Amino acid sequence: MNALQNDLLLKALRQEPVSRPPVWMMRQAGRYLPDYIKLRNKYDFFTRVQTPELACEITLQPVDQVGVDAAIIFSDILVIPQAMGLEVLMEEGKGPSLPQVVRGKAEVEALRTDGVEESLAYVMNALALSKKELNGRVPLIGFAGAPWTILCYMVEGKGSKTWDKAKQFLYTQPEVAHQLLQKITDITINYLKAQVVAGADTVQVFDSWAGALSPEDFSIFAQPYLLQIAKAIQPLAPVILFPKGSWYALDALQHSGASGIGIDWLLTPQLARSIVGNNITLQGNFDPAKLLAPPAQIKKWVKEMIDGFGTQAYIANLGHGITPNVPVDHAKAFVDAVKSYSA
Amino acid sequence: MNALQNDLLLKALRQEPVSRPPVWMMRQAGRYLPDYIKLRNKYDFFTRVQTPELACEITLQPVDQVGVDAAIIFSDILVIPQAMGLEVLMEEGKGPSLPQVVRGKAEVEALRTDGVEESLAYVMNALALSKKELNGRVPLIGFAGAPWTILCYMVEGKGSKTWDKAKQFLYTQPEVAHQLLQKITDITINYLKAQVVAGADTVQVFDSWAGALSPEDFSIFAQPYLLQIAKAIQPLAPVILFPKGSWYALDALQHSGASGIGIDWLLTPQLARSIVGNNITLQGNFDPAKLLAPPAQIKKWVKEMIDGFGTQAYIANLGHGITPNVPVDHAKAFVDAVKSYSA
Repeated sequence: MNALQNDLLLKALRQEPVSRPPVWMMRQAGRYLPDYIKLRNKYDFFTRVQTPELACEITLQPVDQVGVDAAIIFSDILVIPQAMGLEVLMEEGKGPSLPQVVRGKAEVEALRTDGVEESLAYVMNALALSKKELNGRVPLIGFAGAPWTILCYMVEGKGSKTWDKAKQFLYTQPEVAHQLLQKITDITINYLKAQVVAGADTVQVFDSWAGALSPEDFSIFAQPYLLQIAKAIQPLAPVILFPKGSWYALDALQHSGASGIGIDWLLTPQLARSIVGNNITLQGNFDPAKLLAPPAQIKKWVKEMIDGFGTQAYIANLGHGITPNVPVDHAKAFVDAVKSYSA
Repeated sequence: MNALQNDLLLKALRQEPVSRPPVWMMRQAGRYLPDYIKLRNKYDFFTRVQTPELACEITLQPVDQVGVDAAIIFSDILVIPQAMGLEVLMEEGKGPSLPQVVRGKAEVEALRTDGVEESLAYVMNALALSKKELNGRVPLIGFAGAPWTILCYMVEGKGSKTWDKAKQFLYTQPEVAHQLLQKITDITINYLKAQVVAGADTVQVFDSWAGALSPEDFSIFAQPYLLQIAKAIQPLAPVILFPKGSWYALDALQHSGASGIGIDWLLTPQLARSIVGNNITLQGNFDPAKLLAPPAQIKKWVKEMIDGFGTQAYIANLGHGITPNVPVDHAKAFVDAVKSYSA
């Protein structure tokens, strides 16, 4: 295994001096890339996720084709419900669905939390293969969903605008909810540890639906589990927490021990930096819809974003996943603008 | 016309002393009420909206059945695109759709901004009839969508998770976007003036998709038009601005001249109050999903909410519309908890 030739991401996560901020994009291995579409048309979603050669090929596409400073393993947060014993269906263009939802204590107690190294061996194999194929060019990012976000899907059985069934579960069966959140936390810690062993240089925890929760609910049902994960994994590899939509969580999470926190565009870079200082690495927060603007405008906005965050203890990224309708040239303009940044 | 017997809402909006906070609920005239469902099963959406007797009956249902301190006229924000010349379809359970979307200057220039008193006469008739039937029991609230939110539907043609086509329109054709936002603003001002003449005691402007915008984009594409509306209507009746999701807008909008600002549950009552003081009336911010909790728990949370906002210059409400799955008894528990509040 070659030493990393581009370790900007890891340096930024350790708050070490960097010549420029590293850049990657959430969902960078995805549908805006024509070569991804070719594989999508040949293999269904879980075939792509569960076949290490395919997952590796997809993982490397944006490194080769867009020039990002990190690869993120191609997988899905819903492999955890699968590993716990729930069926997950993925219909192309319709989003995920779970036919057997969790309604109460009986279903929670039936969920498995062990054996993730075996049940999700394909992820670890994909990580190991990607690490080998990257051959030290850029770091490899592993990931998992946050416990609250995984609970959302387990209880609702599909996506939701309001997640009111998931919240009803919290409000009407709080003890069972905490039991479920703890089980998800336990298996997620095992899973992320295995990802690091398999080759992940850093891991991101996606709390995609954190922003559905009030500050108080976040502090009760989301934050304690994010903190457990950060505490368990951070000694092994830098952890990035991404509580999408929860602008209010930044202050509390800066003391989580995690190396980095992702934010979306509801916080200005200046305000985010003023809250955390340079003691923690911030990641974000370009609105992916802005990638639909002309490239010259994208470059201007990227400069303003970096001016706001500063070049140090900062990872340039989007504030949410890149959408399928973004032209590849616009994604490249975003990446190039970060690479050519000067104050 | 009898004088108002319960003018708590208007007193709260004028920051006058009140014995307790007034309470109403967004979407209070809606699908959680069995009597509303009966009318929904007999008449399609636009028949309900466009028939003053039906709209009036629906408007009064929550006053009679849940005991709220205000009625809000049963209508829809998409009557404005209709009045401007666009077709709007409403399929039960599927949300609205606009077959002809706005793509550029030609479509914007073709939109009408005059004649709203005639084209939306049914709204004014419904307001006048509701005012008469209320007979002074509680104030009557009129409303409209905010220009940015109306633009979203005009450009996308339907609901969206990301509103990226609407944002693309802002970013790639900013001058045309501003022209469209101004046209929507102009007709909305005419429309709200007519609502006040017809009997609305106060009006709320719903910027339901404000939270999709960054603080900078909000300040460019949403705020100036909200301010125009507030300035034009406030001399006639108190205005409540509700920029859903835009927690960051509270500081700027407190200087809009509007009487009140609605907020959702991403801001704590304490923080919101600390930002605006008692110079403006705050409205909100109970998470409607919390109405699925047991009534005893709802009452405890309502008390905490009012403790946080304080009883003065405050209107108890939800932070978003009530969902169809809320039991009527739980909605009543919310209303009763406000009415029986003591510090």
